Amino acid sequence: MLIVMRPDATAQDIERVNDEIRRRGWRPHPIPGGSRTAVGITGNPGAVEPEPFRVLPGVADAVSISQPFKLVSREVKPDDTRFSLGNLEIGGNALHVLAGPCSVESREQILSTAHAVKASGATFLRGGAFKPRTSPYEFQGLKQDGLELLAAARKETGLRVVTEVKDVETLASVAEHTDMLQIGARNMQNFSLLEAVGDLRKPVLLKRGMSATIKELLMAAEYIVARGNTQVILCERGIRTFETMTRNTLDLNAVPILKNLSHLPVFVDPSHGIGVRKAVPAMCRAAVAVGADGLIIEVHPNPPMAKSDGFQSLDFDEFERTMGEVRAVAQALGRSVARLG
Amino acid sequence: MLIVMRPDATAQDIERVNDEIRRRGWRPHPIPGGSRTAVGITGNPGAVEPEPFRVLPGVADAVSISQPFKLVSREVKPDDTRFSLGNLEIGGNALHVLAGPCSVESREQILSTAHAVKASGATFLRGGAFKPRTSPYEFQGLKQDGLELLAAARKETGLRVVTEVKDVETLASVAEHTDMLQIGARNMQNFSLLEAVGDLRKPVLLKRGMSATIKELLMAAEYIVARGNTQVILCERGIRTFETMTRNTLDLNAVPILKNLSHLPVFVDPSHGIGVRKAVPAMCRAAVAVGADGLIIEVHPNPPMAKSDGFQSLDFDEFERTMGEVRAVAQALGRSVARLG
Amino acid sequence: MLIVMRPDATAQDIERVNDEIRRRGWRPHPIPGGSRTAVGITGNPGAVEPEPFRVLPGVADAVSISQPFKLVSREVKPDDTRFSLGNLEIGGNALHVLAGPCSVESREQILSTAHAVKASGATFLRGGAFKPRTSPYEFQGLKQDGLELLAAARKETGLRVVTEVKDVETLASVAEHTDMLQIGARNMQNFSLLEAVGDLRKPVLLKRGMSATIKELLMAAEYIVARGNTQVILCERGIRTFETMTRNTLDLNAVPILKNLSHLPVFVDPSHGIGVRKAVPAMCRAAVAVGADGLIIEVHPNPPMAKSDGFQSLDFDEFERTMGEVRAVAQALGRSVARLG
Amino acid sequence: MLIVMRPDATAQDIERVNDEIRRRGWRPHPIPGGSRTAVGITGNPGAVEPEPFRVLPGVADAVSISQPFKLVSREVKPDDTRFSLGNLEIGGNALHVLAGPCSVESREQILSTAHAVKASGATFLRGGAFKPRTSPYEFQGLKQDGLELLAAARKETGLRVVTEVKDVETLASVAEHTDMLQIGARNMQNFSLLEAVGDLRKPVLLKRGMSATIKELLMAAEYIVARGNTQVILCERGIRTFETMTRNTLDLNAVPILKNLSHLPVFVDPSHGIGVRKAVPAMCRAAVAVGADGLIIEVHPNPPMAKSDGFQSLDFDEFERTMGEVRAVAQALGRSVARLG
Repeated sequence: MLIVMRPDATAQDIERVNDEIRRRGWRPHPIPGGSRTAVGITGNPGAVEPEPFRVLPGVADAVSISQPFKLVSREVKPDDTRFSLGNLEIGGNALHVLAGPCSVESREQILSTAHAVKASGATFLRGGAFKPRTSPYEFQGLKQDGLELLAAARKETGLRVVTEVKDVETLASVAEHTDMLQIGARNMQNFSLLEAVGDLRKPVLLKRGMSATIKELLMAAEYIVARGNTQVILCERGIRTFETMTRNTLDLNAVPILKNLSHLPVFVDPSHGIGVRKAVPAMCRAAVAVGADGLIIEVHPNPPMAKSDGFQSLDFDEFERTMGEVRAVAQALGRSVARLG
Repeated sequence: MLIVMRPDATAQDIERVNDEIRRRGWRPHPIPGGSRTAVGITGNPGAVEPEPFRVLPGVADAVSISQPFKLVSREVKPDDTRFSLGNLEIGGNALHVLAGPCSVESREQILSTAHAVKASGATFLRGGAFKPRTSPYEFQGLKQDGLELLAAARKETGLRVVTEVKDVETLASVAEHTDMLQIGARNMQNFSLLEAVGDLRKPVLLKRGMSATIKELLMAAEYIVARGNTQVILCERGIRTFETMTRNTLDLNAVPILKNLSHLPVFVDPSHGIGVRKAVPAMCRAAVAVGADGLIIEVHPNPPMAKSDGFQSLDFDEFERTMGEVRAVAQALGRSVARLG
Repeated sequence: MLIVMRPDATAQDIERVNDEIRRRGWRPHPIPGGSRTAVGITGNPGAVEPEPFRVLPGVADAVSISQPFKLVSREVKPDDTRFSLGNLEIGGNALHVLAGPCSVESREQILSTAHAVKASGATFLRGGAFKPRTSPYEFQGLKQDGLELLAAARKETGLRVVTEVKDVETLASVAEHTDMLQIGARNMQNFSLLEAVGDLRKPVLLKRGMSATIKELLMAAEYIVARGNTQVILCERGIRTFETMTRNTLDLNAVPILKNLSHLPVFVDPSHGIGVRKAVPAMCRAAVAVGADGLIIEVHPNPPMAKSDGFQSLDFDEFERTMGEVRAVAQALGRSVARLG
Repeated sequence: MLIVMRPDATAQDIERVNDEIRRRGWRPHPIPGGSRTAVGITGNPGAVEPEPFRVLPGVADAVSISQPFKLVSREVKPDDTRFSLGNLEIGGNALHVLAGPCSVESREQILSTAHAVKASGATFLRGGAFKPRTSPYEFQGLKQDGLELLAAARKETGLRVVTEVKDVETLASVAEHTDMLQIGARNMQNFSLLEAVGDLRKPVLLKRGMSATIKELLMAAEYIVARGNTQVILCERGIRTFETMTRNTLDLNAVPILKNLSHLPVFVDPSHGIGVRKAVPAMCRAAVAVGADGLIIEVHPNPPMAKSDGFQSLDFDEFERTMGEVRAVAQALGRSVARLG
């Protein structure tokens, strides 16, 4: 159930609605929009009778919601969600490109990459410090040292930093050193972690699980937003199919479907999505054309020597060329690519 | 094994190579390229010794081929395959858009659609006359009458015509009335039908089976080319995954992978691929951006009243707008969209 | 719509119902049951009004059917379908085991296998004469010679014979030499072939397509039954998933679901299903335990030397041991394994 | 690399091998077997030279391992892993049945179920206290109260208790109240949680992720065993496919493949695997026939009223009948079903 306020509703009117919801033992979620506020209700055991709300002052309508996701739904909030990090706006007309190595490997590696991707037009530096790996015997990242190298690169270049947080234990430290938290595909349904990042007020890049449905991705985002953190970016990163010539199958179909169902920004990770270096630029172009609000691309000074994911990382020249194509497609469709101020 | 001839090899040199291959009980397949000819070998039970071929006059090299597909492989023929229908070239810089209804339903329906898609810039009219349907109780197409309506629309508009052939029995009649034969997803491994179209000299649009691997699609094309028909277009049309919000999952990853492995043109069918009308334009844009050589799009005068696939068909206005976006993306990437002469 | 007759309805009553159906331009399908007859209706464009039928003499009820499949549905015919080949009954308490090589390779091979599988308790000899192969360069079977070798083995051992028919062109010849026709996974939606075998009166073993849903398998069977051939066996043979350690994923879940939805017998092909020789016996035991009415198992005198599918074929000793386990599981669950008279 | 000791090797010989491994900066993992001990090596950056180990006293051989999983591999430890909880042995000839509701809902519910499943022959009571749910608005379990109700049921009936642990935060509490820890499908690659249960010395039932490969399941188990906890049970619980008539596709193929690759016990969860109440008994029978070492079955006093998973839970009578079939199949194949002492 969603209580839609009139454009001229007062703060008092909204509070009155909140009170009525709380009085029934439920939780109100005021959602400010462009011209009016709506109030979502959660915690209700079944259907909610609309009539008692329709008669309250300032209420335009009370409408039931047909999907199991509520706060992330476009039914609840028709306008696109936008939010700012300093002078950068996420979710607006300008796309963001997040670029960098799979893993932070050394000071030299991360700094040289940061300078290169900044020069080509990225706004964020990505890089893994805590790496979840299929095998316990694979490189697990530089951990705390990696976080500090990322922070150093941020200081030196002005790039924002995004890195993966893999458990509640290391969340505080990761949050301290980065501008955006990434939840990896394997943790998309780690609900304890989702709730913990939901309690922060920091942007979250939520990757789709490798065989998660679109609905499950939205429900995972709902876990975060229901705790009050509305700065969530949905990220398509490839699903698991029968095909073996690609690492995953980047599901670009998800982008228009998600944009239609939800007001949250949608990013795409072509590097993990197809997992074949030579084909990554084509998937970047397609992701922009299909309507993505941002890209996350693996870039490494020397892909064949990378400690992880070298087979899908671009080198600096390839990234520079790809950014040119990305800008060309964006412009052809009336969008732009964000740049550092 | 592939025998690569020198640029200055004579017709006699090539024939000598063919003879040597035949003498061993195998089949030669001369493949003319831009600057030189190569000769593929099939029918060999195991590995072929290169030495006896390397010493023949006009032979530059004899190289083994690492993939199970041969004649369709870019290892065998590095240059893109291009072929012409009258003054239209398939596989070149200019993309083709094939548009029309899922099923031919009536004279009025097919003629109005033909005029509309021509006006918006399609070069081919698509439309099903013989419809393979999951249920024996669903509309199976107008059959012979449908073919004749397509031919009438071709005559009236100058559009080329593509339609599906579903069995060997009706092949001759379909081939007579159309410019390009479509093999549907369910028939991708109907090897008897592949061999029959391989014996013709007419372009074939070969759709990927709904859970066919990229390798299997290429092997199916190999069946056609091995019979001598080299005018084959590979068509991605969506694969089957666990997702239920879309009809299929359009696998745009397949496009750069196919273009890399094979010299054949690659088309994309966004309509069946995602199966959600509202999301079809986004997938059309992405298909162009990813590198497709053509699109096949379902268009109907009145989608909600269509006898089949109305939920994924564009109306005339939506198609017109989509063509504008398609042209914008193509131009941004240095390609164009073909037009009728 | 299904017209259910009373137990005491006369042949005249039934013919009257048929006439009423035909008078509307539809087709009646009388389905005799244990105690009463039902009449299915096909060809109706939409919902059928039950009232005009309920008032006819001998009619007990007129009920609508909730699934898109009709004639194969247990709603239409609650009793299991059973049919006989000579003194063998398919679909009854006794399971059948169909065994033999993937391909007929030679007289010696097929005869030695026939004797061995008969001695171990198979009732049918299987073996491919016309082989659909992914690559045009792989062994395509002995074709007509293979059919004759199968017929010779039948004559010498008394085993019934089942083999695959891959196109309409060779159907008459295959039907002449065999007791049961197999439609392979790749042809499950080759509707022209389904209609052609539907016009015969010979048992058909219909294999599930490699990513066909359960509903699609039932619709394919409906194509055959709607042409009047009611002797159809549904065969689970493995679906395509992301797993690479097995050839396919044998979907035993399909067996209880199919038995619940349909009255047709359900067989299982563990050899193709898992495609790993060492694991085939375990899957045979599980197929019996889950409720299969028959098994089709690849057996070869010398699996490592087989021209096709040796990696999943049992040798004679392994087959003998497997049959012992199959009988043990069947008996534990109150079923038996059929033997030649 | 695996150092295989001679049957007569002394404890000193083994310690000498361990020292040599540690001296190189790697970690030794002694694995006692029936007749001899082997020592696995982890932490080595690349291939290990076997010669320096082969010459040590008591060493029979040094063999390289071809799979990425080591400690869970049958190459490393050929004998089946067995372990005891009191007088119950897991992994031996006798199968275990773990039964109970999806969620602990009330004292009355869990006690009545405990008595019923004990009477029918279960050895373990299952029941969720901390429930990971797709939606934040669904019932999340009774949490700590649920754990205490499980402990009360254990005290009253003597049944062992297994329940899911969903995060590191609640692990200590869950471990205190239960005999076996369950890691759910969504947490199969929650590596922090795997490491935490690896540090305990309590049996772990590790469920396969919903699209995890067999290799990934084994690598997840490797995470636990590498921390020293060798009491790990692998559990197949259904994978995600395109089929919509079942909740998941129970992959019984995984059982013989896992038993062949690994020495760990393999259990099966038919309830989640097929997710259709009527079909659960058939999948239980098949799981036993295919070689499972145990079953985990959802049982509820009144399935239609269950707070979660009622559509796949058996009632007491259905469970009693299913246990009869399970015992019949087990006995037919020379196995038995374990009973409380």
